[in-house]
Amino acid sequence: MSDIFKRHIAKFAEVNDKEFSKILTFFQVQKVKKKENLLVEGHICTTNYFVLKGCLRKFFVNTKGVEQTTEFAIENWWITDLVAYEHKLPSEFYIQAVENAEVLSIENSTEATLLSEFPVMERYFRFIYQRAYAASQMRMKYLYDLSKEEFYHHLNDHYPEFVQRIPQYLIASYLGFTPEYLSEIRAKRRS
Amino acid sequence: MSDIFKRHIAKFAEVNDKEFSKILTFFQVQKVKKKENLLVEGHICTTNYFVLKGCLRKFFVNTKGVEQTTEFAIENWWITDLVAYEHKLPSEFYIQAVENAEVLSIENSTEATLLSEFPVMERYFRFIYQRAYAASQMRMKYLYDLSKEEFYHHLNDHYPEFVQRIPQYLIASYLGFTPEYLSEIRAKRRS
Repeated sequence: MSDIFKRHIAKFAEVNDKEFSKILTFFQVQKVKKKENLLVEGHICTTNYFVLKGCLRKFFVNTKGVEQTTEFAIENWWITDLVAYEHKLPSEFYIQAVENAEVLSIENSTEATLLSEFPVMERYFRFIYQRAYAASQMRMKYLYDLSKEEFYHHLNDHYPEFVQRIPQYLIASYLGFTPEYLSEIRAKRRS
Repeated sequence: MSDIFKRHIAKFAEVNDKEFSKILTFFQVQKVKKKENLLVEGHICTTNYFVLKGCLRKFFVNTKGVEQTTEFAIENWWITDLVAYEHKLPSEFYIQAVENAEVLSIENSTEATLLSEFPVMERYFRFIYQRAYAASQMRMKYLYDLSKEEFYHHLNDHYPEFVQRIPQYLIASYLGFTPEYLSEIRAKRRS
Protein backbone atom coordinates (compact mmCIF):
# COMPACT_ATOMS: atom_id res chain seq x y z
CA MET A 1 0.00 0.00 0.00
CA SER A 2 2.95 2.31 0.66
CA ASP A 3 3.92 1.83 -3.01
CA ILE A 4 1.58 4.66 -3.95
CA PHE A 5 3.66 6.97 -1.69
CA LYS A 6 6.90 5.71 -3.21
CA ARG A 7 5.65 6.42 -6.72
CA HIS A 8 4.47 9.85 -5.63
CA ILE A 9 7.87 10.76 -4.20
CA ALA A 10 9.55 9.47 -7.37
CA LYS A 11 7.59 12.03 -9.43
CA PHE A 12 9.48 14.87 -7.75
CA ALA A 13 12.66 13.60 -6.06
CA GLU A 14 15.21 10.83 -6.38
CA VAL A 15 14.97 8.35 -3.53
CA ASN A 16 16.33 4.80 -3.78
CA ASP A 17 14.70 1.71 -2.21
CA LYS A 18 16.91 1.74 0.86
CA GLU A 19 16.26 5.41 1.52
CA PHE A 20 12.54 4.95 0.98
CA SER A 21 12.42 2.14 3.56
CA LYS A 22 14.03 4.47 6.09
CA ILE A 23 11.79 7.39 5.14
CA LEU A 24 8.74 5.20 5.65
CA THR A 25 9.70 4.56 9.29
CA PHE A 26 8.88 8.23 10.04
CA PHE A 27 5.22 7.58 9.17
CA GLN A 28 2.35 5.67 10.73
CA VAL A 29 -0.21 3.80 8.64
CA GLN A 30 -3.68 4.58 9.89
CA LYS A 31 -7.09 3.19 8.90
CA VAL A 32 -9.98 5.59 9.19
CA LYS A 33 -13.66 4.69 9.09
CA LYS A 34 -16.16 6.72 7.05
CA LYS A 35 -17.30 9.79 9.09
CA GLU A 36 -14.43 9.35 11.59
CA ASN A 37 -12.64 12.58 12.51
CA LEU A 38 -8.87 12.86 12.25
CA LEU A 39 -8.94 16.44 13.50
CA VAL A 40 -11.53 18.28 15.58
CA GLU A 41 -11.98 22.05 15.89
CA GLY A 42 -10.19 23.46 18.93
CA HIS A 43 -7.69 20.60 19.13
CA ILE A 44 -3.98 21.22 18.58
CA CYS A 45 -3.11 20.14 15.04
CA THR A 46 0.20 18.26 15.01
CA THR A 47 -0.35 15.77 12.18
CA ASN A 48 -0.10 15.86 8.40
CA TYR A 49 -1.90 13.18 6.35
CA PHE A 50 -1.13 11.57 2.99
CA VAL A 51 -4.06 9.63 1.53
CA LEU A 52 -3.15 6.10 0.39
CA LYS A 53 -6.75 5.09 -0.24
CA GLY A 54 -10.16 6.70 0.17
CA CYS A 55 -11.18 10.28 0.59
CA LEU A 56 -10.96 12.87 3.37
CA ARG A 57 -12.45 16.33 3.61
CA LYS A 58 -11.70 19.43 5.64
CA PHE A 59 -14.54 21.61 6.90
CA PHE A 60 -15.41 24.19 9.49
CA VAL A 61 -18.71 24.90 11.19
CA ASN A 62 -19.82 28.38 10.18
CA THR A 63 -21.61 30.97 12.30
CA LYS A 64 -24.97 29.50 11.26
CA GLY A 65 -23.90 26.07 12.53
CA VAL A 66 -23.56 24.68 9.00
CA GLU A 67 -20.62 22.50 7.93
CA GLN A 68 -18.70 24.27 5.19
CA THR A 69 -16.31 21.99 3.27
CA THR A 70 -13.19 23.80 2.04
CA GLU A 71 -11.05 20.93 0.76
CA PHE A 72 -11.07 17.30 -0.32
CA ALA A 73 -8.12 14.92 -0.41
CA ILE A 74 -8.14 11.70 -2.42
CA GLU A 75 -5.26 9.30 -3.18
CA ASN A 76 -1.87 11.07 -3.45
CA TRP A 77 -3.06 14.23 -1.72
CA TRP A 78 -1.80 15.68 1.53
CA ILE A 79 -4.21 17.27 3.96
CA THR A 80 -3.86 19.14 7.24
CA ASP A 81 -4.65 22.56 8.72
CA LEU A 82 -1.33 24.00 7.64
CA VAL A 83 -1.28 27.16 9.79
CA ALA A 84 -2.16 25.19 12.91
CA TYR A 85 0.23 22.37 11.94
CA GLU A 86 3.26 24.62 11.49
CA HIS A 87 2.65 26.56 14.69
CA LYS A 88 1.08 23.77 16.77
CA LEU A 89 -2.09 25.78 17.32
CA PRO A 90 -5.70 24.78 18.02
CA SER A 91 -7.38 24.22 14.66
CA GLU A 92 -10.44 26.00 13.30
CA PHE A 93 -11.20 22.95 11.14
CA TYR A 94 -12.31 19.34 11.17
CA ILE A 95 -10.73 16.65 9.00
CA GLN A 96 -13.08 13.74 8.41
CA ALA A 97 -13.18 10.59 6.29
CA VAL A 98 -15.71 10.75 3.44
CA GLU A 99 -15.07 7.06 2.66
CA ASN A 100 -13.26 4.34 4.61
CA ALA A 101 -9.67 5.42 4.14
CA GLU A 102 -6.07 4.50 4.72
CA VAL A 103 -3.55 7.27 5.35
CA LEU A 104 0.09 7.80 6.17
CA SER A 105 0.40 10.24 9.06
CA ILE A 106 3.41 12.16 10.27
CA GLU A 107 3.81 14.33 13.35
CA ASN A 108 5.16 17.87 13.01
CA SER A 109 8.26 17.16 15.13
CA THR A 110 8.92 13.88 13.27
CA GLU A 111 8.68 15.72 9.95
CA ALA A 112 11.40 18.13 11.13
CA THR A 113 13.70 15.16 11.86
CA LEU A 114 12.83 13.53 8.53
CA LEU A 115 13.74 16.72 6.66
CA SER A 116 17.02 17.14 8.46
CA GLU A 117 18.03 13.48 7.90
CA PHE A 118 16.68 13.32 4.31
CA PRO A 119 17.08 16.79 2.77
CA VAL A 120 15.85 15.29 -0.53
CA MET A 121 12.41 15.38 1.08
CA GLU A 122 12.65 19.20 1.14
CA ARG A 123 12.45 18.99 -2.65
CA TYR A 124 9.50 16.64 -2.48
CA PHE A 125 7.56 18.89 -0.10
CA ARG A 126 8.60 22.00 -2.04
CA PHE A 127 6.80 20.53 -5.06
CA ILE A 128 3.79 19.45 -2.97
CA TYR A 129 3.25 22.93 -1.57
CA GLN A 130 4.13 24.69 -4.82
CA ARG A 131 1.47 22.70 -6.70
CA ALA A 132 -1.07 23.03 -3.90
CA TYR A 133 -0.53 26.80 -3.83
CA ALA A 134 -0.72 26.97 -7.63
CA ALA A 135 -4.05 25.11 -7.55
CA SER A 136 -5.37 27.44 -4.87
CA GLN A 137 -4.42 30.49 -6.99
CA MET A 138 -6.58 29.12 -9.80
CA ARG A 139 -9.39 28.23 -7.41
CA MET A 140 -9.31 31.80 -6.09
CA LYS A 141 -9.71 33.03 -9.68
CA TYR A 142 -12.72 30.76 -10.21
CA LEU A 143 -14.27 31.92 -6.93
CA TYR A 144 -14.07 35.51 -8.17
CA ASP A 145 -14.85 34.82 -11.81
CA LEU A 146 -17.46 32.09 -11.93
CA SER A 147 -20.92 31.91 -10.47
CA LYS A 148 -21.49 28.95 -8.17
CA GLU A 149 -23.38 27.24 -10.96
CA GLU A 150 -20.52 27.81 -13.44
CA PHE A 151 -18.01 26.55 -10.85
CA TYR A 152 -20.04 23.35 -10.51
CA HIS A 153 -20.01 22.84 -14.29
CA HIS A 154 -16.28 23.55 -14.34
CA LEU A 155 -15.71 20.85 -11.72
CA ASN A 156 -17.97 18.45 -13.56
CA ASP A 157 -16.23 19.05 -16.91
CA HIS A 158 -12.68 18.88 -15.56
CA TYR A 159 -12.97 16.35 -12.74
CA PRO A 160 -15.97 14.14 -13.64
CA GLU A 161 -14.70 11.12 -11.67
CA PHE A 162 -14.23 13.27 -8.59
CA VAL A 163 -17.76 14.71 -8.84
CA GLN A 164 -19.17 11.19 -9.33
CA ARG A 165 -17.28 9.86 -6.34
CA ILE A 166 -18.16 12.48 -3.73
CA PRO A 167 -21.67 12.44 -2.17
CA GLN A 168 -23.75 15.25 -3.66
CA TYR A 169 -24.47 16.96 -0.31
CA LEU A 170 -20.70 17.33 0.19
CA ILE A 171 -20.21 18.75 -3.31
CA ALA A 172 -22.96 21.22 -2.39
CA SER A 173 -21.19 22.01 0.90
CA TYR A 174 -17.93 22.61 -1.00
CA LEU A 175 -19.63 24.91 -3.49
CA GLY A 176 -21.46 26.75 -0.73
CA PHE A 177 -25.03 25.99 -1.75
CA THR A 178 -27.85 23.71 -0.63
CA PRO A 179 -28.21 20.11 -1.89
CA GLU A 180 -31.62 21.15 -3.30
CA TYR A 181 -30.06 23.88 -5.43
CA LEU A 182 -27.45 21.42 -6.70
CA SER A 183 -30.25 19.01 -7.72
CA GLU A 184 -31.91 21.83 -9.65
CA ILE A 185 -28.69 22.67 -11.52
CA ARG A 186 -28.13 19.02 -12.39
CA ALA A 187 -31.73 18.61 -13.58
CA LYS A 188 -31.42 21.78 -15.69
CA ARG A 189 -28.30 20.48 -17.40
CA ARG A 190 -29.82 17.08 -18.14
CA SER A 191 -32.91 18.62 -19.72
CA MET B 1 19.07 46.35 -1.36
CA SER B 2 19.63 42.61 -1.72
CA ASP B 3 20.11 42.47 2.09
CA ILE B 4 16.37 42.12 2.50
CA PHE B 5 16.54 38.90 0.45
CA LYS B 6 19.49 37.63 2.47
CA ARG B 7 17.61 38.20 5.72
CA HIS B 8 14.56 36.51 4.27
CA ILE B 9 16.50 33.39 3.30
CA ALA B 10 18.13 33.36 6.75
CA LYS B 11 14.69 33.00 8.35
CA PHE B 12 14.27 29.56 6.79
CA ALA B 13 17.63 28.16 5.64
CA GLU B 14 21.32 28.36 6.49
CA VAL B 15 23.27 30.15 3.79
CA ASN B 16 26.66 31.75 4.42
CA ASP B 17 27.91 35.01 2.82
CA LYS B 18 29.87 33.26 0.10
CA GLU B 19 26.94 31.06 -0.86
CA PHE B 20 24.58 34.01 -0.82
CA SER B 21 26.81 35.95 -3.24
CA LYS B 22 26.67 33.01 -5.64
CA ILE B 23 22.93 32.54 -5.19
CA LEU B 24 22.38 36.20 -5.99
CA THR B 25 24.01 35.78 -9.41
CA PHE B 26 20.99 33.68 -10.48
CA PHE B 27 18.74 36.74 -10.09
CA GLN B 28 18.27 40.01 -11.94
CA VAL B 29 17.48 43.25 -10.13
CA GLN B 30 14.67 45.04 -11.91
CA LYS B 31 13.12 48.47 -11.34
CA VAL B 32 9.44 48.75 -12.17
CA LYS B 33 7.48 51.96 -12.55
CA LYS B 34 4.03 52.36 -11.00
CA LYS B 35 1.38 50.85 -13.34
CA GLU B 36 4.03 49.02 -15.39
CA ASN B 37 3.18 45.40 -16.23
CA LEU B 38 5.59 42.59 -15.45
CA LEU B 39 3.23 40.01 -16.91
CA VAL B 40 0.44 40.38 -19.44
CA GLU B 41 -2.49 37.98 -20.02
CA GLY B 42 -1.78 35.57 -22.87
CA HIS B 43 2.01 35.85 -22.54
CA ILE B 44 4.10 32.86 -21.50
CA CYS B 45 4.96 33.23 -17.82
CA THR B 46 8.61 32.27 -17.23
CA THR B 47 9.54 34.60 -14.35
CA ASN B 48 9.12 34.57 -10.59
CA TYR B 49 9.43 37.87 -8.66
CA PHE B 50 10.62 38.67 -5.14
CA VAL B 51 9.70 42.18 -3.99
CA LEU B 52 12.64 44.14 -2.53
CA LYS B 53 10.72 47.40 -2.36
CA GLY B 54 7.27 48.63 -3.34
CA CYS B 55 4.11 46.73 -4.13
CA LEU B 56 2.85 44.57 -6.98
CA ARG B 57 -0.56 43.12 -7.63
CA LYS B 58 -1.91 40.26 -9.70
CA PHE B 59 -5.24 40.61 -11.48
CA PHE B 60 -7.30 39.22 -14.31
CA VAL B 61 -9.87 40.89 -16.49
CA ASN B 62 -13.22 39.25 -15.86
CA THR B 63 -15.99 38.52 -18.34
CA LYS B 64 -17.47 41.97 -17.71
CA GLY B 65 -14.13 43.59 -18.61
CA VAL B 66 -13.43 44.59 -15.02
CA GLU B 67 -9.99 44.14 -13.42
CA GLN B 68 -10.26 41.70 -10.52
CA THR B 69 -7.27 41.78 -8.16
CA THR B 70 -6.52 38.39 -6.61
CA GLU B 71 -3.18 39.01 -4.87
CA PHE B 72 -0.82 41.71 -3.60
CA ALA B 73 2.90 41.35 -2.96
CA ILE B 74 4.85 43.77 -0.79
CA GLU B 75 8.43 43.53 0.51
CA ASN B 76 9.55 39.91 1.15
CA TRP B 77 6.75 38.39 -0.91
CA TRP B 78 7.07 36.29 -4.02
CA ILE B 79 4.63 36.69 -6.87
CA THR B 80 4.02 34.91 -10.15
CA ASP B 81 1.31 32.94 -11.93
CA LEU B 82 2.48 29.65 -10.48
CA VAL B 83 0.62 27.23 -12.77
CA ALA B 84 1.82 29.08 -15.88
CA TYR B 85 5.34 29.48 -14.40
CA GLU B 86 5.83 25.79 -13.66
CA HIS B 87 4.50 24.64 -17.03
CA LYS B 88 5.64 27.62 -19.15
CA LEU B 89 2.08 28.35 -20.26
CA PRO B 90 0.34 31.52 -21.40
CA SER B 91 -0.93 33.30 -18.30
CA GLU B 92 -4.53 34.24 -17.47
CA PHE B 93 -3.24 37.06 -15.28
CA TYR B 94 -1.50 40.42 -15.26
CA ILE B 95 1.19 41.37 -12.73
CA GLN B 96 1.48 45.13 -12.31
CA ALA B 97 3.32 47.58 -10.05
CA VAL B 98 1.00 49.39 -7.61
CA GLU B 99 3.92 51.64 -6.54
CA ASN B 100 7.35 52.20 -8.05
CA ALA B 101 9.06 48.97 -7.12
CA GLU B 102 12.31 47.06 -7.12
CA VAL B 103 12.26 43.30 -7.57
CA LEU B 104 14.54 40.32 -7.88
CA SER B 105 13.49 38.21 -10.83
CA ILE B 106 14.43 34.66 -11.71
CA GLU B 107 13.62 32.65 -14.83
CA ASN B 108 12.08 29.20 -14.51
CA SER B 109 15.06 27.44 -16.13
CA THR B 110 17.54 29.43 -14.00
CA GLU B 111 15.62 28.47 -10.87
CA ALA B 112 16.03 24.80 -11.79
CA THR B 113 19.81 25.26 -12.00
CA LEU B 114 19.87 27.23 -8.75
CA LEU B 115 18.02 24.43 -6.96
CA SER B 116 20.29 21.73 -8.30
CA GLU B 117 23.47 23.68 -7.38
CA PHE B 118 22.14 24.93 -4.03
CA PRO B 119 19.78 22.28 -2.64
CA VAL B 120 19.48 24.39 0.54
CA MET B 121 17.22 26.64 -1.55
CA GLU B 122 14.74 23.74 -1.80
CA ARG B 123 14.23 24.23 1.93
CA TYR B 124 13.80 27.97 1.49
CA PHE B 125 11.20 27.56 -1.27
CA ARG B 126 9.49 24.73 0.60
CA PHE B 127 8.82 27.21 3.43
CA ILE B 128 7.76 29.95 0.99
CA TYR B 129 5.14 27.77 -0.66
CA GLN B 130 4.08 26.07 2.57
CA ARG B 131 3.33 29.46 4.15
CA ALA B 132 1.71 30.84 1.02
CA TYR B 133 -0.53 27.77 0.80
CA ALA B 134 -1.32 27.99 4.53
CA ALA B 135 -2.34 31.64 4.09
CA SER B 136 -4.52 30.75 1.12
CA GLN B 137 -6.28 28.04 3.17
CA MET B 138 -7.22 30.68 5.74
CA ARG B 139 -8.26 33.12 3.02
CA MET B 140 -10.50 30.45 1.53
CA LYS B 141 -12.14 30.05 4.95
CA TYR B 142 -12.74 33.81 5.17
CA LEU B 143 -14.18 33.85 1.64
CA TYR B 144 -16.72 31.23 2.70
CA ASP B 145 -17.32 32.46 6.24
CA LEU B 146 -17.25 36.25 6.14
CA SER B 147 -19.37 38.71 4.22
CA LYS B 148 -17.38 41.10 2.03
CA GLU B 149 -17.91 43.80 4.63
CA GLU B 150 -16.65 41.55 7.45
CA PHE B 151 -13.65 40.55 5.33
CA TYR B 152 -12.78 44.22 4.86
CA HIS B 153 -12.95 44.81 8.63
CA HIS B 154 -10.83 41.69 9.18
CA LEU B 155 -8.16 43.07 6.82
CA ASN B 156 -8.35 46.48 8.46
CA ASP B 157 -8.01 45.04 11.97
CA HIS B 158 -5.21 42.61 11.18
CA TYR B 159 -3.25 44.48 8.48
CA PRO B 160 -3.95 48.19 9.07
CA GLU B 161 -0.68 49.36 7.47
CA PHE B 162 -1.42 47.30 4.38
CA VAL B 163 -4.93 48.73 4.02
CA GLN B 164 -3.54 52.26 4.50
CA ARG B 165 -0.86 51.70 1.89
CA ILE B 166 -2.95 50.31 -0.96
CA PRO B 167 -5.15 52.68 -3.01
CA GLN B 168 -8.78 52.23 -2.00
CA TYR B 169 -9.99 51.31 -5.50
CA LEU B 170 -7.55 48.36 -5.47
CA ILE B 171 -8.68 47.21 -2.03
CA ALA B 172 -12.21 47.31 -3.46
CA SER B 173 -11.05 45.33 -6.51
CA TYR B 174 -9.45 42.74 -4.20
CA LEU B 175 -12.61 42.42 -2.11
CA GLY B 176 -14.78 42.21 -5.21
CA PHE B 177 -16.92 45.30 -4.67
CA THR B 178 -17.15 48.84 -6.03
CA PRO B 179 -15.07 51.73 -4.62
CA GLU B 180 -18.39 53.46 -3.78
CA TYR B 181 -19.51 50.55 -1.62
CA LEU B 182 -16.12 50.56 0.16
CA SER B 183 -16.55 54.29 0.92
CA GLU B 184 -19.96 53.55 2.42
CA ILE B 185 -18.55 50.83 4.68
CA ARG B 186 -15.73 53.09 5.84
CA ALA B 187 -18.14 55.95 6.53
CA LYS B 188 -20.42 53.60 8.48
CA ARG B 189 -17.57 52.45 10.68
CA ARG B 190 -16.38 55.99 11.39
CA SER B 191 -19.83 57.15 12.40
